Amino acid sequence: MKDVAAAAGVGLKTVSRVVNGESGVTPEMAARVQAAIEALGFRRNDSARLLRTGRTASVALLLEDISDPFSSALSRAVEQVAAAEGCLLFTGSSAEVPSRERELALAFCARRVDGLIVVPAGDDHRYLLPEIESGTPVVFLDRPGSGIDADAVLSDNAGGAQAGTAHLIAHGHRRIGFIGDLPSIHTAAERARGYRAAMAAAGLPVDERWVDCGPTDRTRVAAAVRRLTTGPDAVTALFTANNRVTLAALHHLPADRRPALVGFDDLELADLLTPGLTVVAQDPAALGALAARRLFDRLTGDTTPPARLELPTLLIPRGSGETPPLTA
Amino acid sequence: MKDVAAAAGVGLKTVSRVVNGESGVTPEMAARVQAAIEALGFRRNDSARLLRTGRTASVALLLEDISDPFSSALSRAVEQVAAAEGCLLFTGSSAEVPSRERELALAFCARRVDGLIVVPAGDDHRYLLPEIESGTPVVFLDRPGSGIDADAVLSDNAGGAQAGTAHLIAHGHRRIGFIGDLPSIHTAAERARGYRAAMAAAGLPVDERWVDCGPTDRTRVAAAVRRLTTGPDAVTALFTANNRVTLAALHHLPADRRPALVGFDDLELADLLTPGLTVVAQDPAALGALAARRLFDRLTGDTTPPARLELPTLLIPRGSGETPPLTA
Repeated sequence: MKDVAAAAGVGLKTVSRVVNGESGVTPEMAARVQAAIEALGFRRNDSARLLRTGRTASVALLLEDISDPFSSALSRAVEQVAAAEGCLLFTGSSAEVPSRERELALAFCARRVDGLIVVPAGDDHRYLLPEIESGTPVVFLDRPGSGIDADAVLSDNAGGAQAGTAHLIAHGHRRIGFIGDLPSIHTAAERARGYRAAMAAAGLPVDERWVDCGPTDRTRVAAAVRRLTTGPDAVTALFTANNRVTLAALHHLPADRRPALVGFDDLELADLLTPGLTVVAQDPAALGALAARRLFDRLTGDTTPPARLELPTLLIPRGSGETPPLTA
Repeated sequence: MKDVAAAAGVGLKTVSRVVNGESGVTPEMAARVQAAIEALGFRRNDSARLLRTGRTASVALLLEDISDPFSSALSRAVEQVAAAEGCLLFTGSSAEVPSRERELALAFCARRVDGLIVVPAGDDHRYLLPEIESGTPVVFLDRPGSGIDADAVLSDNAGGAQAGTAHLIAHGHRRIGFIGDLPSIHTAAERARGYRAAMAAAGLPVDERWVDCGPTDRTRVAAAVRRLTTGPDAVTALFTANNRVTLAALHHLPADRRPALVGFDDLELADLLTPGLTVVAQDPAALGALAARRLFDRLTGDTTPPARLELPTLLIPRGSGETPPLTA
C-alpha cells in the first residue's frame, strides 16, 4: 500500500479509502490510485483485513454432486441468504468421495471461511471438531453429520417415501417395487425405511426381490426396471427413490405394460410428460435457506444446543402414480 | 506445531509427517499426534505450505448462475479435470451481478488459487490484469472476457442458432419468432445474430415484432409466447434461445395451435415429451473440460498467445421442430 501511495502521490489513508470503497475521495484521486494499483499489481491483503475484523465475510458450502439439480437448488438458496448477509459463498463438491469432502472442508477452513455448510459424503466428521471448537460453526445439510454434535437440516425422507408408497397402495397396488440409491447413504436408507413402513402399515408383505438398491447409474437402474417389470411375478408399481433413479427408470419403462410410478424428488419437465410424473417433492430452496439461516444465527451468537431440523415433503399427483394395477 | 509436538511427546518432524500424510510413522505415534492435534485445535497452515511450493493446488470456477443445469454440467467437467490434476476446485456464482463477479474473483485470488476460470457476468475484466500479470492464469468460459487479452472457450452460438432456424425454414416455416435473453449478454446477442443470418440466407424478412429479448423469467416469456402465437399475424414456429426460455415457453404454448419449436440447449427430459423437443445442444462437458485443460496448460508453462476456442453445437431433431406450418 505504501508503494501505491507513493506511485499515486497520495497519502496511505486515501489508498485505503479507495480500496475499501469509502467516500471522501475525489474521482480524480480515485482514478490515480486505481492506475497505481493496476500498475503495481497490488492485491488487497485479505489476511490483514481478517486480523482486524476477525471475520472474512465468506462462508462455504460443500456439495455432494454439483451437477445434481437438487444440489443446484440448494446452492442458489444458500447463496441468496449469504448475499443478503453481505457474505461471499464459496462452494465445492465432494463427488461423493469422503476424502474429497474432508480435504475441501479443511481447505476452506484453512482459508478462513466464517462458517461451513456440509452435505456429507463421508460418515465420520470428527475431523471438523477442531474447526468447530476454534469458532467455525458447521451446519449439515440433506444428511446428518456423524460422530459430531452439530446442526442438521434434513427432509423428512422416511415420511415422504412412506406417503408416496401409501399413495400407490391407495390406488390398488399390492406388488410395489422400490429402486433406490446405495443403502450406505443416509437419505437412501431413510427412504427405504419409509417404503417398508407403508407396506407394513397396509399389512402387505415385501418380497426382497422387489427392493433394488445400488449406484444410480443408468445401466443398473435399467436392469432393475427390466427385472422388476417382467415375468409372472412382475410388480404393478414402482417407487423410484431419487431424481436420478426416476430419470433413468422413465427411459426404460416397458411401453406395453407400464407400471404405475411415483418418484422421490421433482424433475423440471415432470408436469409436461404424458402421463404427468407423480412425485414426492423436497423443497431444496427451503432446505438451503434454513441451513444458511442456522449458520448465520450461529455466527451471531446463537449458542442453543445443536438441533436436527426436518422439513416436510409434498406429494404431487400428476398421473403416473394414479393408474390401477394392470391385470395379467 | 511445536505445541502439538510437545503435547504428543514427539519430535517436530513426526508431527510434520503425520500432518502431510507421509510414511515412517508408527500407527501409535500417528494416533498420539492426531489426538494432540484435536486437543489443541491445530490447523495446517496453508500459507506456510504455499510459501514453500509456490502453488496451492487449487483453482476456482466462477459461474454465472449456479442453479442453471448448464452451469452444473460445466462445473462437473472442470471438477473432473481438476481432480485428475490433484487440484481442489472452488466455485462461486456471480448471479449475473458484475460487482459480485469481481468481488468473488478477487476473493479467490486473495486466497491464492493457482488459476481462475470465469463465466463472465460483467463486461469489463481489466480488474483481472494485475492477477494475470502476477502469474494467475485466467480462462473465460461460455462468454469472452472484455478489455483483456485472455483465453476464451465458447460454443458456436451464432452457428447453432443459424442451424436451428434454418431447420425450421427447411420444414416450410417463413414466419419464425425468436425469444431470447438480454441482448447485453454475449451468448444471447450471438444467437440472435445466428437467427437473423438464417433468415437472411433464405431471403426471408424479419418482422421486428417477432424478436423478443429480455430477462428469462417465466412471466416475460409467457407474455412473449402469447403475443407471438396469437392474432392474424401469429408466427408458425418459435426459436427459443436458451434452456430457461424453452422451459417457460413449453409451459405456455397454445394447445390448439401449437407452433413448431426448436430450443437452444438440451433439457433432461426433452426426449420423453410428446412431441420430443428438438434442440440445438451445446456440449457443456466438453466446454468445461477444454477450459480446464487450457488452464492447466497455462499453469504448466504454455505461453502461446491467448486464443478463442469455439466448440460446435449439435442439432437434435425429436419432433417439435419438424411439424409444418399450421394453415389459418
